[in-house]
Amino acid sequence: MTRTEPAGTPLGDQFHLYDTTLRDGAQREGISYSVADKLAVARLLDELGVGYIEGGWPGAMPKDTEFFARAAEGELALRHAVLVAFGSTRRAGVRAEEDSQVRALLDSQAPVVTLVAKSDVRHIERALRVDVAEACAMVEDTVSFLVGEGRRVFLDAEHFFDGYAYDPDTALRVLDAAGSGGADVVVLCDTNGGQLPLGIAETVREVAQRTGLRLGIHCQDDTGCAVGNSIAAVQAGATHVQCTANGYGERAGNADLFAVTGNLVAKLGMEVLPEGGAAELTRVSHALAEIANLAPDTHQAYVGSSAFAHKAGLHASAIKVDPLLYNHIDPALVGNDMRVLVTEMAGKASLELKGRELGLDLAAQPEALSSAVKKVKSMEAQGWSFEAADASLELLLLAETGKAPVEPPFTLESYRVVLDHRAGGEVGSEATVKVHVGGQRVIATAEGNGPVHALDAALRKALSPHLSWLDSVELSDYKVRILAGHPGTDAVTRVLVESSDGEREWTTVGVHANIVEASWLALCDALVHKSLRQ
Amino acid sequence: MTRTEPAGTPLGDQFHLYDTTLRDGAQREGISYSVADKLAVARLLDELGVGYIEGGWPGAMPKDTEFFARAAEGELALRHAVLVAFGSTRRAGVRAEEDSQVRALLDSQAPVVTLVAKSDVRHIERALRVDVAEACAMVEDTVSFLVGEGRRVFLDAEHFFDGYAYDPDTALRVLDAAGSGGADVVVLCDTNGGQLPLGIAETVREVAQRTGLRLGIHCQDDTGCAVGNSIAAVQAGATHVQCTANGYGERAGNADLFAVTGNLVAKLGMEVLPEGGAAELTRVSHALAEIANLAPDTHQAYVGSSAFAHKAGLHASAIKVDPLLYNHIDPALVGNDMRVLVTEMAGKASLELKGRELGLDLAAQPEALSSAVKKVKSMEAQGWSFEAADASLELLLLAETGKAPVEPPFTLESYRVVLDHRAGGEVGSEATVKVHVGGQRVIATAEGNGPVHALDAALRKALSPHLSWLDSVELSDYKVRILAGHPGTDAVTRVLVESSDGEREWTTVGVHANIVEASWLALCDALVHKSLRQ
Repeated sequence: MTRTEPAGTPLGDQFHLYDTTLRDGAQREGISYSVADKLAVARLLDELGVGYIEGGWPGAMPKDTEFFARAAEGELALRHAVLVAFGSTRRAGVRAEEDSQVRALLDSQAPVVTLVAKSDVRHIERALRVDVAEACAMVEDTVSFLVGEGRRVFLDAEHFFDGYAYDPDTALRVLDAAGSGGADVVVLCDTNGGQLPLGIAETVREVAQRTGLRLGIHCQDDTGCAVGNSIAAVQAGATHVQCTANGYGERAGNADLFAVTGNLVAKLGMEVLPEGGAAELTRVSHALAEIANLAPDTHQAYVGSSAFAHKAGLHASAIKVDPLLYNHIDPALVGNDMRVLVTEMAGKASLELKGRELGLDLAAQPEALSSAVKKVKSMEAQGWSFEAADASLELLLLAETGKAPVEPPFTLESYRVVLDHRAGGEVGSEATVKVHVGGQRVIATAEGNGPVHALDAALRKALSPHLSWLDSVELSDYKVRILAGHPGTDAVTRVLVESSDGEREWTTVGVHANIVEASWLALCDALVHKSLRQ
Repeated sequence: MTRTEPAGTPLGDQFHLYDTTLRDGAQREGISYSVADKLAVARLLDELGVGYIEGGWPGAMPKDTEFFARAAEGELALRHAVLVAFGSTRRAGVRAEEDSQVRALLDSQAPVVTLVAKSDVRHIERALRVDVAEACAMVEDTVSFLVGEGRRVFLDAEHFFDGYAYDPDTALRVLDAAGSGGADVVVLCDTNGGQLPLGIAETVREVAQRTGLRLGIHCQDDTGCAVGNSIAAVQAGATHVQCTANGYGERAGNADLFAVTGNLVAKLGMEVLPEGGAAELTRVSHALAEIANLAPDTHQAYVGSSAFAHKAGLHASAIKVDPLLYNHIDPALVGNDMRVLVTEMAGKASLELKGRELGLDLAAQPEALSSAVKKVKSMEAQGWSFEAADASLELLLLAETGKAPVEPPFTLESYRVVLDHRAGGEVGSEATVKVHVGGQRVIATAEGNGPVHALDAALRKALSPHLSWLDSVELSDYKVRILAGHPGTDAVTRVLVESSDGEREWTTVGVHANIVEASWLALCDALVHKSLRQ
């Protein structure tokens, strides 16, 4: 079994930054993570440096069981974070060691287990249908069994705030049962999300005094206060805070990991991330939105692309002189940028920076830089986006600076894709490409599972006898976004293609009203980019 | 001139619900209101029953000048709200009555004027470039001049919280100057949005004690706490709260009017809206998003379409018994609805609840219910997702309960789609469908911008002579999700199609390795569902 305490933050185990994107975040309408997605999410959270990653409910959900199995086989290799399995206390009237759900938590091999338990007497009596004594025994037995098996245990006290307001004694008995069983932290959950900050702070202070237990906080955003509630709880004494990436979660969502962390670091001065972690907040937020296949929230606190964007007006010149008078923090602290809208300054500066990243000195070519800014802006107005497509941006900058290859590895004459759903119900896709490569005109036809697959197959068939490196290139991801503001099937489609040659990954973009043409543009850029690196 | 106090709320002038969507909200990146938009926004806010509507900055912005002129001519006819003009104090060294910007505020004929003034000594000295005495004189002169002209005046103390923390004496002198001039309310503005709830509450309490003035609050969302900060300020004694619709505003935005109002009404029991107003929150929020040309935030507190949507299979059986144990308020209070999502966690209870929403009594048919659960689970394992596709789920449940239509409106024999990128660079899409409808075999061919558009066009061409209702049906949204875990272009594709007939909207889903076939499945379900409602 791996370590039970997170590594690398100055606060160590004194403060827990706990992420439940993979379990509670996945409750958001529209999110459906595959096991591969879950592994990718966990890796990004670990790069950021969160202390604990709740991976799911092994035993209850087949995908979660597989996720923990693959993690146990070493697929995750977490550097900072400790993996947590979520589950329930034993059923009523059964010994903890005989409860298959509890055994599945052990089998997951996660070093930490978070158990959920009801702490509102109404839920205990009406939903669980046991008395308070048995509810407490279920908590204490399960915690002490898991602790005896060498696990650290945290207890999520579900519906705690409502329960405490209605019947404080029962709510506290449940917490005490967890403490007696050996739980390290009892987490006060605002499961229905109905609380406000001042009330949360008061209750946390009171409960800390009455129980002497280490307290955590878990907030939902039903009053629009999940972040404020979480921070108020920390200020009142909670030392464990549960969040989800971008606030994903059921109903209005959970407390947003990025806003909570931004506040802890920048406002309360708490070193809850390893060195350099805060500057990764913006990047990780956007990457996690991509994996969830949701558009990043442009107006998200700290990490949104507009979070430090100022409409040029009254104070534009003052902002330039003294930006910190107009920003609540230095945006670089969280890996974000200030933008002054309606000027080209920001565009040039960031393109120049980008060029430097790609090894191009655009500052030395002011005209090329200007024309590249103009080109990028006009393409972005048509729906292109280079934020995630470095490889396509690099090709564009090379073309603008006159450094594009004189000979691209191939040129297209034409393609044709035929899709049919035949009378017998069979569905087929076939593509023919006519390309010029190595001084020859080549025609190739191939079938595929769908139009883009067929097109990719035909292109490879035509090119691979001429391009020795082609076989090493794989399409590792393919994403489609129908751009909002263009309703109906005649919308503009943006396709992102991620390619890999086993050593390097690169992403290209294509935009067109026709999804197949958009895909074609991204596929071609991917191969041209690879050929430049040969 | 019209009245200076809002009409119709039980709290009357004791509490101000103040909206600045038309001024501060319009600072949001991407929002650009026409004068007609501004009038429509003001009418909706008035229907909701807010007390004050800040309409813009007459004199500074031509659109705002026109808006106030048309309002003065009677185009608005506000029933509840009072119109407010926003502007600045006089320039340094000029008499208030001789300052053209101040005169424009009078000319607007708005009965209330909100003046913005700097209250942070650093802004006074570095941006305004006057000394504190002159800054205070600018405030007092301008307020007393406008009050003398029969206006009520509120003062927005810009950057108040930062200024008070840095130099409390200067910040308080500015407030006192406003009070001496005759301002009714001094509004403490967290202009840079860097505050947290407990700190806001402490400062508001302290300032109320030290000044004895009536305090207002204006929060920006840069820490993700604008709503929590606003509510904390009210709990600490502020009796005037400034918000924007859906939190629109510069950077991360402002405090969301709907979440703040929901909290004031449902959590603090304050009657800040006229009778029936709270039940309009959801409708007005969505209508204001439409006018701003922004997609409503599905996960917005109180008013989002997911705000009361439950996914957890765990909870569904309990929710059925006692919905209020799982919702922080009755959704009807804010004009919203509870929804139960059908997901991979779907159990019988949640499917039964869903059936009830759709008017199907599945409890009476336990075998049909069992087989529907099995079918949903097996389809979800292949990538189908019904949580956003009620219409497809309804068709599935109807089929399982034997209530599907004996005759679907049409049957497909075959389709063929041809996409080509010709040698000249031209890209074309053409589809041919062979369908059976109204006892006939119909063949139709159409072109489109892309494969799905062409297929939709061909299908409509084939069917519309036979199905009279077809022309009313529009595709209002089309979403594509490449399911992760199946990398590369041979992935499984899930398509969601939202259709509208001008009265009703419904969503259908299709899943297939071939994106065109997936789209076809969703398109067909959309039409079959419509035909059932005929």
